[in-house]
Parts: sequence; structure tokens; C-alpha cells
Amino acid sequence: MQVFQREFRLPAFPRGFHLITERVEREMPELRSLRAGILHVFIKHTSASLTINEDADPTVRKDFESHFNQMVPEEAPYYIHNYEGSDDMPAHLKASILGSSVSIPVTDGRLNLGTWQGIYLCEHRDRAAGRSLVLTSYGM
Amino acid sequence: MQVFQREFRLPAFPRGFHLITERVEREMPELRSLRAGILHVFIKHTSASLTINEDADPTVRKDFESHFNQMVPEEAPYYIHNYEGSDDMPAHLKASILGSSVSIPVTDGRLNLGTWQGIYLCEHRDRAAGRSLVLTSYGM
Amino acid sequence: MQVFQREFRLPAFPRGFHLITERVEREMPELRSLRAGILHVFIKHTSASLTINEDADPTVRKDFESHFNQMVPEEAPYYIHNYEGSDDMPAHLKASILGSSVSIPVTDGRLNLGTWQGIYLCEHRDRAAGRSLVLTSYGM
Repeated sequence: MQVFQREFRLPAFPRGFHLITERVEREMPELRSLRAGILHVFIKHTSASLTINEDADPTVRKDFESHFNQMVPEEAPYYIHNYEGSDDMPAHLKASILGSSVSIPVTDGRLNLGTWQGIYLCEHRDRAAGRSLVLTSYGM
Repeated sequence: MQVFQREFRLPAFPRGFHLITERVEREMPELRSLRAGILHVFIKHTSASLTINEDADPTVRKDFESHFNQMVPEEAPYYIHNYEGSDDMPAHLKASILGSSVSIPVTDGRLNLGTWQGIYLCEHRDRAAGRSLVLTSYGM
Repeated sequence: MQVFQREFRLPAFPRGFHLITERVEREMPELRSLRAGILHVFIKHTSASLTINEDADPTVRKDFESHFNQMVPEEAPYYIHNYEGSDDMPAHLKASILGSSVSIPVTDGRLNLGTWQGIYLCEHRDRAAGRSLVLTSYGM
């Protein structure tokens, strides 16, 4: 059994949903040495998140932004936590709905994703700095 | 430390929420050899998902379908990605809200689920073909 | 590679979102022996859930409760499963939206969380008893 772990910082992304699959793979070249295992990707923030979804058509990622803005509105009358800006509390909620980690099987040295699957960085703040990720891969 | 991995295809299910716990256990008999570990279940698609919920009363699964259709409507005016059918963009959104994997502790050779917990396949498309899952179990 | 696993019961919490990071760390002192790995936290229930979010300001956790009550209402006209009380079906839905497990990287013997991240127990029932968690940590 082998374990590899690496922390790195993504550059700042604008609010919205962004593909980061290739960047993640590049940061963890040791994936190639795993015949069977898991890659765990974790984001160390509470106003951005990670998910896996369709990686071909950019309109899907635009509709994600539109729908999450509708499902988790800014300025909801019941928010108490609003002194960090109107995008802050919705960002926390979206982050928990989508989640702070994804885990993906590794098979024969590669991420075993479906044909259309990619890893999204979900940036929920209007003006965020870069985001720190921790990659942990393990297997044999 | 042992790692077992297997990919298989579920038959086509109708749109809705379906229990697949027994099928998953049957595909991974090596669970019995793990005293302590994890089973990771991954779905290689972006319009179906996996979750863990109540496995006794089928009305719970019916209410899941009703509520997700309400929370993620078809034909929302802000969808741009609509040329694959009115069920397509909602399917992508539901898949990310629920998630593409579940991971479950394995204890003394069995899934250590609560009394009422089961694994759901969440089929979000009207007419999907079978769905491919990757099971990875590891532990000692 | 080492694997540690432990099951324990949290005391009853009122409906809402509660920080349990310190309690989880206390139950798994073996984290200190891992240089690189993962802690997996699993809840054995279908009407309570786990997530990671902001751990400093209690108003964030209050807004979580308000927003989830709005996004998953009680007494929705389409619920069939309502004989266990009006908080029951919403609890199942919230549990799947948030998820039954969180997994966190372990680095140099500690949870590698971001500065503001903590583990939430999300109690969705009005009057729940304690909740059972299974902790599994693994790495080298």
C-alpha cells in the first residue's frame, strides 16, 4: 500500500464553476504508479467547494451558477450572518450542499472517471483569492 | 492492507430512487475478508448519482423524486443547456447535489451501516441505459 | 499502512447544526501516529448528517438551519411519507443533500483542515436520541 499527499494552491478563479481535472492530475504524477486505489481531493475553505460533473459543454457550468444562485439566494430575509457581504452566507451554504471533497477511483495508473466526468472547482465568492487543495492518493 | 476494485454495470432503472445495497455487496464478496476498512462506491455518470438513506419504506424514495423535481425544476427559464431534453440539465444538477460517490465503513467483514440505511441509485434521466459503478474496498 | 476504526455515540443534540470537531479528534488519538492519510467520519442514521463548514461564528450555523428549512419545507403537499411526524421526511432529504460522511486529510498527525473549517453534526429531527458515528483513519 502506498500513500501520496500533496497540498497546492489554485490561482484565483472568478465566481462560477471551473474544470480543474488536468491541473489535479498534473499535481499528482504518482497516480501512474497505482494499479488500484483512490484519489481524494479536499478544499480547505468554507466558501468554495468541489464536485464532479459534465466536462464537455461550458453551458452546463453556466447553468450550475444560475441554478445555485436561485436555490441559495443572496439577501434572504432570514440570514443573520451578513456582515461579510451578500455573497458570503450563500457561499457557505452552497459549499456544504456540494461538498468539500471528491474521491475518485484510480485504475491502472489513471483516474477512472466516466467519459464526460470532470472535477469542478466551485467558486462561490465574488472576489476570492486562490484556494488551497490537499490531494491524497492511496492504493497498491 | 488490502485493496480490491471492481467495475460493473447496473441494468437500466426507471427515473427515481432505487435500493442497490444487496447488489453492491454481491459484487464485492472480498468485503468479508476485511476486519476494518472502507467501501467506496463511485458512479461514472453525470446524470445519475448515489446516496445513502432510509431503506425500509418505499414512500421515502417516492418523496425523494417529488422533492428533487421541485427543488431542481425542468424548463427553468435560466437554463441554457437544454438541447439534450428537459430532463438533462436538472439531472446534472441533482447529480452534484447528491454526489457521485458514497463511502461506507466496513467492520468485521460487513458494511457497517445503520439499521435503516441503504445505498440508493438515483436515476435522474427519463430513459437511461445501464449505469457503470466502480467499487473499491480497502482495509486490513 | 495503518487502519484504525472506532464507533461511538454522540449525546442527543437539539435540532440544528453543531460543531463536533474536538469530540471527533478526541475519539481518535491514533491520528497523531499518521504522517499522511485520511480520516473518514460516518453517521449511521438517515435523519441526521455531517458536513464541513465555518467553525467560528455561530450565526452561520443558525442560517444553515433557516435555509435548510426553507429549501426543504415541512408539510410539502407532495410528501407521502408523513406518518412519522412533519419533521421526518424533510430530515431524510436534508440528510442526503448534506451527506452521511465527511473525509478529511490527515497530515503530520493532525486533521489538515483550513483555518475556518470544522465538522458539523447536522441534526434534522426535533427530538432525536444520540447519534452513532464510525471513525476510520488510515495512512502511513
